[in-house]
Amino acid sequence: MIIVLKPQATEQHAEELLERISALGLRPLHMPGTERVVLGALGDERVLERLHLDSHPMVESVQRVLAPYKLVSREMHPHDTVVSLGGLDVGGSRFSVVAGPCAVESYEQMSVTARAVRDAGAGALRGGAYKPRTSPYSFQGLGREGLEILAQVAREVGLPAVTEVVEVADVELVDRYADAFQAGARNMQNFRLLRALGQSRKPVVLKRGMAAKVEDLLTAAEYILAEGNPNVILCERGIQTFETATRNTLDLSAVPLIKQRSHLPVLVDPSHGTGIRELVAPMAKAAVACGADGILVEVHHRPEEALSDGQQSLYPDQFTAMMRELGPFVAAAGMTLT
Amino acid sequence: MIIVLKPQATEQHAEELLERISALGLRPLHMPGTERVVLGALGDERVLERLHLDSHPMVESVQRVLAPYKLVSREMHPHDTVVSLGGLDVGGSRFSVVAGPCAVESYEQMSVTARAVRDAGAGALRGGAYKPRTSPYSFQGLGREGLEILAQVAREVGLPAVTEVVEVADVELVDRYADAFQAGARNMQNFRLLRALGQSRKPVVLKRGMAAKVEDLLTAAEYILAEGNPNVILCERGIQTFETATRNTLDLSAVPLIKQRSHLPVLVDPSHGTGIRELVAPMAKAAVACGADGILVEVHHRPEEALSDGQQSLYPDQFTAMMRELGPFVAAAGMTLT
Amino acid sequence: MIIVLKPQATEQHAEELLERISALGLRPLHMPGTERVVLGALGDERVLERLHLDSHPMVESVQRVLAPYKLVSREMHPHDTVVSLGGLDVGGSRFSVVAGPCAVESYEQMSVTARAVRDAGAGALRGGAYKPRTSPYSFQGLGREGLEILAQVAREVGLPAVTEVVEVADVELVDRYADAFQAGARNMQNFRLLRALGQSRKPVVLKRGMAAKVEDLLTAAEYILAEGNPNVILCERGIQTFETATRNTLDLSAVPLIKQRSHLPVLVDPSHGTGIRELVAPMAKAAVACGADGILVEVHHRPEEALSDGQQSLYPDQFTAMMRELGPFVAAAGMTLT
Amino acid sequence: MIIVLKPQATEQHAEELLERISALGLRPLHMPGTERVVLGALGDERVLERLHLDSHPMVESVQRVLAPYKLVSREMHPHDTVVSLGGLDVGGSRFSVVAGPCAVESYEQMSVTARAVRDAGAGALRGGAYKPRTSPYSFQGLGREGLEILAQVAREVGLPAVTEVVEVADVELVDRYADAFQAGARNMQNFRLLRALGQSRKPVVLKRGMAAKVEDLLTAAEYILAEGNPNVILCERGIQTFETATRNTLDLSAVPLIKQRSHLPVLVDPSHGTGIRELVAPMAKAAVACGADGILVEVHHRPEEALSDGQQSLYPDQFTAMMRELGPFVAAAGMTLT
Repeated sequence: MIIVLKPQATEQHAEELLERISALGLRPLHMPGTERVVLGALGDERVLERLHLDSHPMVESVQRVLAPYKLVSREMHPHDTVVSLGGLDVGGSRFSVVAGPCAVESYEQMSVTARAVRDAGAGALRGGAYKPRTSPYSFQGLGREGLEILAQVAREVGLPAVTEVVEVADVELVDRYADAFQAGARNMQNFRLLRALGQSRKPVVLKRGMAAKVEDLLTAAEYILAEGNPNVILCERGIQTFETATRNTLDLSAVPLIKQRSHLPVLVDPSHGTGIRELVAPMAKAAVACGADGILVEVHHRPEEALSDGQQSLYPDQFTAMMRELGPFVAAAGMTLT
Repeated sequence: MIIVLKPQATEQHAEELLERISALGLRPLHMPGTERVVLGALGDERVLERLHLDSHPMVESVQRVLAPYKLVSREMHPHDTVVSLGGLDVGGSRFSVVAGPCAVESYEQMSVTARAVRDAGAGALRGGAYKPRTSPYSFQGLGREGLEILAQVAREVGLPAVTEVVEVADVELVDRYADAFQAGARNMQNFRLLRALGQSRKPVVLKRGMAAKVEDLLTAAEYILAEGNPNVILCERGIQTFETATRNTLDLSAVPLIKQRSHLPVLVDPSHGTGIRELVAPMAKAAVACGADGILVEVHHRPEEALSDGQQSLYPDQFTAMMRELGPFVAAAGMTLT
Repeated sequence: MIIVLKPQATEQHAEELLERISALGLRPLHMPGTERVVLGALGDERVLERLHLDSHPMVESVQRVLAPYKLVSREMHPHDTVVSLGGLDVGGSRFSVVAGPCAVESYEQMSVTARAVRDAGAGALRGGAYKPRTSPYSFQGLGREGLEILAQVAREVGLPAVTEVVEVADVELVDRYADAFQAGARNMQNFRLLRALGQSRKPVVLKRGMAAKVEDLLTAAEYILAEGNPNVILCERGIQTFETATRNTLDLSAVPLIKQRSHLPVLVDPSHGTGIRELVAPMAKAAVACGADGILVEVHHRPEEALSDGQQSLYPDQFTAMMRELGPFVAAAGMTLT
Repeated sequence: MIIVLKPQATEQHAEELLERISALGLRPLHMPGTERVVLGALGDERVLERLHLDSHPMVESVQRVLAPYKLVSREMHPHDTVVSLGGLDVGGSRFSVVAGPCAVESYEQMSVTARAVRDAGAGALRGGAYKPRTSPYSFQGLGREGLEILAQVAREVGLPAVTEVVEVADVELVDRYADAFQAGARNMQNFRLLRALGQSRKPVVLKRGMAAKVEDLLTAAEYILAEGNPNVILCERGIQTFETATRNTLDLSAVPLIKQRSHLPVLVDPSHGTGIRELVAPMAKAAVACGADGILVEVHHRPEEALSDGQQSLYPDQFTAMMRELGPFVAAAGMTLT
């Protein structure tokens, strides 16, 4: 429920109302705006009727939020949210490019790749230390050692680092090394993990699950915001369809749809979204054009030797070329690239 | 099978080889290029071994076309095909915008809408006279009367007209009124219709079926080319997935994928692809950015009164605004809009 | 709209009401039941208000049919429909087995296979003369010659014949040779073909399209019934999903769902539904168990030489074994097999 | 890699070979059969070449396991595995029925429901204490209190209890209260959880993910077996498709497909698989018919008051009726029900 106060309502009126909301067992929200104060009440909205807010002298209007997500919805928060990812503003006027290898494999690999993507204009570094792999016999990531390498290289090249966390027990450790958490597609509905990330204040890049509707993604994000962490960045990375020529089907229409329904910034991952190196640049340009706030791209200094996702990783030269090609499209979108 | 002749091969060598291919019961293809002549042989390729082409003195190389489509493949025809749609070159450097209402409803509706889209820069007019509708109780199109209105309005505004044909028996009639046929998503695998369209030389806009893989689309196009009509324009219009927020899931990655595999031009239909008016412009821009040759867009002078697809049709003003917004993206792609 | 008459209403009351419905431009339906007469009115139901049927002395109740399909719905026709397919009652207490090769290839092939399936207890023979094939270079069926072979063999073995029709222009010819039409998955929304089949009185086996919801299937069937042909048999044959181990995903839950919503009989095609010979028998048994009225099965006397669908065709011995295994399940369902 | 020893090979030969396999860094497997001993080697199989096993005097044959899953594959283990779920043999000749409410809500609810399902012939009790819910504002389960109620009621009615575990940190606690773990669809690729469950010896009911191919399910099971827990029961519970009339599309063809490829027992969940109470019984019968080893069914003493999944839960009376109807089908399958 959204409660818009009248212009003449004071801070005291707001607090008094919040206390009454709280007393009913609902969760009170305080959203002071530039023109007027908006209050929220989360929970079983039927009990609110007892407060007769409609006829309260300081209340201008009361609206129900129909979507299953509340804090995530644009109704609750009409302005775009900008999330600071270790200094890189995601959701602002700079098109954010987060680049790096799928997995951290060695210091040398990270270092060479990180320098290349930074020099080409990337705003943040990615690299996985914990890799959720389909087969138990595949490379599962370097774990803590991978986190150490990532953090060291990120510091050396001067970029913030994003890395995946797959398990509640690892949240604290990952927090120590990374500037942002990534919750992967397979964990989009790992609600315990989402709650744990909600208790941090670090940004969370939440990837859409392979079978998740846009509404499911937004409702999953609500788990994180409901715990108190407003720094969520959504990421479209392809859904499972009958098409087999591409690894997944990148659903770019999700971008403007999310922008309509939510205030959170949105990235696109054209690497996982297509699974094919040659499609990464065209889909990155399309991401710019449809309104995404940035991209998440896999780059590897030697893709043919990558321990995972080699065929979708760009060579550093290709990344540089892609950044150059992105330029005019980013400008057409009224944004800047670096 | 593709047979590349040596530079010194003469026209006579080519003809002699084509006759021998023909004598084996295969279909011979003659593809003279600027640098050297390429021959093709379609059918059961095993019998070709009898010709020992590998050791023929005028043959440089012999390659199998592995894809199920042959004439459609880029291997057979490395250069982009440009299809002239009543004067509008689709596949060239102009980004083609085909616009108009879902269905022809009246002279007034067509006339008002057609003038609006022409003035905003559309290159061709669309409008259906035969509407394949899910329910037998829905408006099924005006039939011949609709074709007459479409042709008259197209003449008046000076735009070529594209319209759907749903049945072999209608091909001749539609041919008399339209500058290009459209084979709809539901008829993508109506192979008898495709063959009939292959016997025309008018352009065919072939829309991807809702459950069709990119390979299925390309193989369906092969039906048309195999009958002798090279003027095929492919169209991505969304596939059926589990996502319900949009009418279909627009698979933009199909655009660069098709460009890799085929020489045919590709349009994108963001209206059917999303089913939501507000998503049309962002997805049109994304279509430009990922390499499409144009778009097919539904515009209606009074969408709220449209007999079909009202909620995905743009108001004329919205179309004009979209064209303006497309400008910088079309320029970024190195193309022109009007 | 369904109009239930009071017990005391006479035939004359019914006729008078039907005329008034007709006079409003609606399509009148007369559905005399054992206990009372039910009338129907199809079309724009709002004009019906003018008749004030609610207060008519002989009308007990008036209900709207909410589904987009009317004649197909169980609300309009509460009792199960039994369709006579050349003597085989589909929808009755016998579990109908329609078997034969994918395509008619030769007299010998049809003859050997037909005798085998008849001896094992099949109730009807299938075989395609027109094959909608993905590639233009694949075997497309024998056409009229195939129809002749099918009809001759069917007569010789004493089974009714079902065969696919893919084009309006062929309906008359196919009608001369077959006891029932099949409208294939790719033509489920070829509405012109459905209308043409609706003008016949021969049974139509309507297969669910690969991307069609159950509601789409029922609404497609409405096209046939709305033209006056009540003899429609629905067929679940698998839908397109992300699973690649099977050719399609056989959606058996469609069977009880259709039974809930419609009075039409339902067959299951476990051959196309799975694409894998070894899965045919288990899924045939499951079809019995979930309430299907029969199955459509591909059998070939030499599957390894079949011109199409070899890997999903049963050997005659396997068909015989499957029929034996089906026995106890058919009995458990309270039905008979032969 | 599977290494079949010659009949004359002794235990000592086997051990010597296993040590050599181990010394190469591979995981050795010992599978003594009634006729001859089979050894396995898991890991990077290329290093095995150094052993020249082909020419070893006691080795009869060496085969690669091509599937990404090894321990799970039928090649490695040709006989059906029977898993004892607290005394209920899943995978044997009794058709296993695991029934109970979606979530444990109270002692009374569990007690009434448990007695009803036991009296109707259920072999195990289900009930969730941790519910992964799409919305953070939905009932999330009673947690430890739920586990206590479940365990107490299971003891009272004399049935083993199955309950979901959603997080590594809870494995130990759940282990104390339940006879079997359930890993839910949303956690099918929560590989850390699978590893943790692999370190237990309690049975794990592993549900197929909504976007998981059969191969993905089998490879996920490999995580559990690879950690040493052979007691895995697979469960088909519906996949995400474009069909919206049912909650999911129950893919029953997965059952015979899994039986072909793996030795593990398979349950079917017709409640989540359809989401519609009326479809549960028909799909349960179909599950019997296609070869499933049992079903997982939601029953609630007052579905209209259920805190989750009410519309797919059977009333106790309906469960009893379903069990009665299942009888003849279970007999037809050569199995027993209670």
